[in-house]
Amino acid sequence: MPIDEAPRRVGRRPGQPETRAEILRAARALFAERGFAGTSIRSVATGAGVDPALVHHYFGSKEGLFRAAMEMPIQPEELVKEIFAAGVEQAPERLVRTFLRVWDDPETGPAMVSFLRTALARQESTSLLREFLTATVVRTAASRLLGGVDPAEAALRIELVASQMIGLAVGRRVLAVEPLASMPADALAAAVTPTITRYLLGELPAPHQAAGNPPA
Amino acid sequence: MPIDEAPRRVGRRPGQPETRAEILRAARALFAERGFAGTSIRSVATGAGVDPALVHHYFGSKEGLFRAAMEMPIQPEELVKEIFAAGVEQAPERLVRTFLRVWDDPETGPAMVSFLRTALARQESTSLLREFLTATVVRTAASRLLGGVDPAEAALRIELVASQMIGLAVGRRVLAVEPLASMPADALAAAVTPTITRYLLGELPAPHQAAGNPPA
Repeated sequence: MPIDEAPRRVGRRPGQPETRAEILRAARALFAERGFAGTSIRSVATGAGVDPALVHHYFGSKEGLFRAAMEMPIQPEELVKEIFAAGVEQAPERLVRTFLRVWDDPETGPAMVSFLRTALARQESTSLLREFLTATVVRTAASRLLGGVDPAEAALRIELVASQMIGLAVGRRVLAVEPLASMPADALAAAVTPTITRYLLGELPAPHQAAGNPPA
Repeated sequence: MPIDEAPRRVGRRPGQPETRAEILRAARALFAERGFAGTSIRSVATGAGVDPALVHHYFGSKEGLFRAAMEMPIQPEELVKEIFAAGVEQAPERLVRTFLRVWDDPETGPAMVSFLRTALARQESTSLLREFLTATVVRTAASRLLGGVDPAEAALRIELVASQMIGLAVGRRVLAVEPLASMPADALAAAVTPTITRYLLGELPAPHQAAGNPPA
């Protein structure tokens, strides 16, 4: 929200709601055209005809600008830091509980459903989300997870976790199949946490070893 | 495909492409309005102004009509039967491999991506898909899985499996994050099969026991 809503409209001035909307329009166009990495705060400011300091003022960072442009109701990097704050051994259960809390929350939950629907519906928004997730969530989580471990393995572990958690959100909140949709978060966390523990910390077959060598 | 494409167009006649399209239009309208259970072959035939026998001729069954109307490129009930054909102990690995085969296939894969995007994009199509999946896949799989087990537990097991597999499809084929997108199916199956084995056949906390009693 703008912090300074001047009563008089005198064109593009700092703090006007139209200015913020203009920045978001420019951001959406540039993110769509150039991707997350290829878009700078400066280029968005130029596109919107404002000073880059104003973009920083409204959105804090390029990540914040992206979240606002995509209407992403959470700060995934912050959640990742919270999840790993008590150490890697606690991370699986914290992750499942944090995730269920966000999706079950009466405010963020419906916004997340709407965000997921929109993000998956079109190729361009999916590509953008992939780039953002890879650049922020996967990188942050990988750095917390694994000192000195092969980055491809770390990325795979995090993507397996993400696959389970996204699928859970789809089943519980988008498809909303019973009993998955209504069961208590505690019970669901108990059922799913062992999966996340194995993906994050357990033994996984190395891709090259497993090929042509299916499990018994 | 119609089996009889007469060269002359003389209105609605059996075997004309327009007739098939007309049936699908009527089916989409009725499924959307009345749901899967509330729609009959007869009502679709009436809506399309054709004989019910013609609907059977083109689409075989209400399930077949639904798949065609939703542009669903697979027959999920048939796949479920295949997965359980070698017994319940073999089902987890067969399920993961069948699923990856369908999604990795150069023909059905892209059609599945398109179907998933469309089905999740709008509330109405999601509701319809939920009803269809519950009436067909969940019921078929539950009956194969568990003789005499609590139906709610059977449904939960199948939904947990579905959550992992849908999430895997989203990660590998829709978001297409690396290394998940390109890793060999064998390696991915080896990583995911233990999850499916636990959800289908392993110990799961009972919902009422797990509530308020989180795992250590």
